[in-house]
Amino acid sequence: MILVIHAHPYPSRSRACAALLAGIRDVPSMEVRALYDLYPDFDIDVPAEQAALERAKLIVLLHPLYWYSVPGLMKHWFDSVLLGGWAHGPGGTALEGKDCLWAVTTGDLEKYAIEAPHGHRFEAFTPVVEQTARYCGMNWVEPFVLHDSHEIDEEHLARAGRKLRGRLELWLAEAKHRA
Amino acid sequence: MILVIHAHPYPSRSRACAALLAGIRDVPSMEVRALYDLYPDFDIDVPAEQAALERAKLIVLLHPLYWYSVPGLMKHWFDSVLLGGWAHGPGGTALEGKDCLWAVTTGDLEKYAIEAPHGHRFEAFTPVVEQTARYCGMNWVEPFVLHDSHEIDEEHLARAGRKLRGRLELWLAEAKHRA
Repeated sequence: MILVIHAHPYPSRSRACAALLAGIRDVPSMEVRALYDLYPDFDIDVPAEQAALERAKLIVLLHPLYWYSVPGLMKHWFDSVLLGGWAHGPGGTALEGKDCLWAVTTGDLEKYAIEAPHGHRFEAFTPVVEQTARYCGMNWVEPFVLHDSHEIDEEHLARAGRKLRGRLELWLAEAKHRA
Repeated sequence: MILVIHAHPYPSRSRACAALLAGIRDVPSMEVRALYDLYPDFDIDVPAEQAALERAKLIVLLHPLYWYSVPGLMKHWFDSVLLGGWAHGPGGTALEGKDCLWAVTTGDLEKYAIEAPHGHRFEAFTPVVEQTARYCGMNWVEPFVLHDSHEIDEEHLARAGRKLRGRLELWLAEAKHRA
């Protein structure tokens, strides 16, 4: 019912995404697909990915922000999996009405400002991913953004993991209610 | 002196990027690297890419807009080539002061509006690529955006190719003047 698309190019260096994954590990009715494990050679199994998406009602995009966007393999996944006639365009209704939760980890929040190294507030970088989901007819729910991921300590990381878990459990409870 | 990083996942379907490439084919002092030809398996030769970037003074990113951003292989190229200690961060000055020209082809311009399928004006999607260049210390020159690329006829495509060629020739003339 929940599908987590996880993309971290260097899992052994991951602290923040790893903590989020640890936090949500036991959430029921959830499938995690780690793209860099599944497709180290970028050779995406498109039917398998589409089938996983079809099974889900909530799609979580979980990754560190790389160059203000998703990592390369997740972008390749967008290009390869979210096809016209399936995800958008005439006959492309496979994802319509599903919820999409962007769970993204980033560096120092202070650097996201006009007069700072990233030149913009963080929100200036969201339209690319948000509109990708919306163009496929998905509901864009409030993103889960973990800033300062390089600096925060283990305790705060664990708390963030619990917070994300709370988001998913709440979604499951509401989905049960709606059903 | 000019390096064109070209990324089109399906060259045989390309009309607009192909026309732009045809238009600039004879520009002197120019190297074209077609990422999907060089790296069909996404296995980027990072030292070769960095060496090509070091030789250039103007870097052209030429691609169709895919999901509001660069195609997957170009994103993977950003992730793999623009490394800390080389392109940014302490000691990362390899690209500092080089010019960056984003030459991008897109679909129907009318769809880029709040109450339209893309939900935003086109400019809402530029910060991701622009800030990638700027964070590496590059000068972001006025982008070359070819809208309506699916609809326009061969004559207008050829004209766009000549216009891009004009931009590059002007840059070369100015670079000569500065030298």
